[in-house]
Amino acid sequence: MRGAVLHAPGDVRVEEREDPKIVAPTDAVIRLSATCVCGSDLWPYRGIEAVDGPSPMGHEYVGVVEAVGGEVTSVKPGQFVIGSFFASDNTCEICQAGYQSSCVRREPMGALGAQAELLRVPLADGTLVATPDMPSADLIPSFLAASDVLGTGWFGAVAAQAGPGKTVAVVGDGAVGLLGVLAAKQLGAERIIAMSRHASRQKLALEYGATDIVTERGDEGVAKIKELTGGLGAHSVIEAVGTQESMLQAIHSTRPGGHVGYVGVGHDVTLDGLELFFSHVHLHGGPAPVRQYLPRLIDLIFNQEIDPGKVFDLELPLSQAAEAYRAMDERRAIKALLTV
Amino acid sequence: MRGAVLHAPGDVRVEEREDPKIVAPTDAVIRLSATCVCGSDLWPYRGIEAVDGPSPMGHEYVGVVEAVGGEVTSVKPGQFVIGSFFASDNTCEICQAGYQSSCVRREPMGALGAQAELLRVPLADGTLVATPDMPSADLIPSFLAASDVLGTGWFGAVAAQAGPGKTVAVVGDGAVGLLGVLAAKQLGAERIIAMSRHASRQKLALEYGATDIVTERGDEGVAKIKELTGGLGAHSVIEAVGTQESMLQAIHSTRPGGHVGYVGVGHDVTLDGLELFFSHVHLHGGPAPVRQYLPRLIDLIFNQEIDPGKVFDLELPLSQAAEAYRAMDERRAIKALLTV
Repeated sequence: MRGAVLHAPGDVRVEEREDPKIVAPTDAVIRLSATCVCGSDLWPYRGIEAVDGPSPMGHEYVGVVEAVGGEVTSVKPGQFVIGSFFASDNTCEICQAGYQSSCVRREPMGALGAQAELLRVPLADGTLVATPDMPSADLIPSFLAASDVLGTGWFGAVAAQAGPGKTVAVVGDGAVGLLGVLAAKQLGAERIIAMSRHASRQKLALEYGATDIVTERGDEGVAKIKELTGGLGAHSVIEAVGTQESMLQAIHSTRPGGHVGYVGVGHDVTLDGLELFFSHVHLHGGPAPVRQYLPRLIDLIFNQEIDPGKVFDLELPLSQAAEAYRAMDERRAIKALLTV
Repeated sequence: MRGAVLHAPGDVRVEEREDPKIVAPTDAVIRLSATCVCGSDLWPYRGIEAVDGPSPMGHEYVGVVEAVGGEVTSVKPGQFVIGSFFASDNTCEICQAGYQSSCVRREPMGALGAQAELLRVPLADGTLVATPDMPSADLIPSFLAASDVLGTGWFGAVAAQAGPGKTVAVVGDGAVGLLGVLAAKQLGAERIIAMSRHASRQKLALEYGATDIVTERGDEGVAKIKELTGGLGAHSVIEAVGTQESMLQAIHSTRPGGHVGYVGVGHDVTLDGLELFFSHVHLHGGPAPVRQYLPRLIDLIFNQEIDPGKVFDLELPLSQAAEAYRAMDERRAIKALLTV
């Protein structure tokens, strides 16, 4: 089969890889309908995260079950399924508490390389969720979004306790930030402030439910959020970038007693204990337990109540993965979908 | 009046200070029955926090109202009252959300010096809570504990979401940690693990409801907590020290999705963003909103359902404040009460 492999920073190639097979009786193999490039794929692509030799890339996937191991009972060949970037058993105590991305048996899907024609999914029963029926082609981008960016934005909104009566600010206007806006809206937030200085992203934020746009960043952005919230700060802030600046922008934009939900993978972020202490905020985040939200998200998408697929503003065949990476690296695209 | 003043590290003197008077119409002046030395008083005493000239000390107090300003309506002269280490209006949006220690009009009581015979309390209506009746002398230590250490331990337990079905670990065996144990018990925690290597403190922890004692610290302490919790870590961890080691011990002892409630004032604590991200914990803490809990705590003490005053294992007259500081600095005493 064909799959994307990162050879060195900036060097992604689609090449022949060995077909994945059922290894454990709890595995499934799926034939992908679509996959995509994640903001977090850009860290190794940019050389910020070290790469140890040629690495298969990608951890977002939707497709049709091709084969299942002997112990798999909840999905079967022919079904259209979605899974998250961590395989999980969905039965351990941590999964049952809603933290499937910290499952005691979790396996990172990124190591298996989802930017490919076929993908082995470990712990298939605990990882994959089937759609009620074979979806029409126009819904595929939205289901693909559920595999990571929608689930991650959703977790950011839940961790920030977005809900009725709340003012929510969103730091970051990438796909996760934009879908954090969508999630905050679905969770009933009263006011949603999107922080963005890009016209196309502002437009999508407004479409997804943002009520205000703040273009300022850093301390000026914080001052603007304070100004919009009677000097107090937002109740809930979703951090969807993962840099020192964005994390501090999020914490400083939150009122005492408020909640920061951070889902940007922190790179070179350090927090000062005393500053955090007196900020009085709640801080929660990490790798989103997307599996927890999949049934609800699939429902919302299947019933066309939400359209998260709009974050894909570039669609290319898998063979052009290198161009997809370049477009995202240069911020020419919010998020690139690869058809398989 | 007489009051304790810190002149330089290690140099606390009880000397003549000017009698406090009503300054604003929202003030009260109280005649103290007792006051005490706080773990946080030891930071400037040890020279770790800079002191800018002679500073009145103390922020924990109980006593009888002596005078009130013209706008004070909720307390009156002759009543026995308790207040917290931050004066608060108890009416602003932040107070109403339960974060009185971040009240938009808050004033730190430490600056006014509660280790003294008299104390001016700003925003008396929002700060002071009267007991139902004049308490008997044996209850005074417990009411004094409510002014800070009990309320702080309580907030730690609430922030850690201690409650039914939960395993709670407590890092720190000072007065706050011990009262964190008491709070976790009152909040219905199933299992409470006190981390302590001091026999007298272990004994009090067990009396307050601890079910297990762990004597190991650092990574060994974490390993022990994991061992006691099926390899997962505690659901709830109260951090009541405020050092880098204790904070990491708390975070590492918490299972993914669990809650760290940190109430030790962080000194030279820095948290790595990526490590925090993958820990998957909830982190909440800061200066305890003691005012929120005072009515409930006063009730529990007045009805003799809890005995937080036991954390005072040294009682001296105010005139011997210097010895009280020394005893706590040298860890000869858990907490020193000063009779006035």
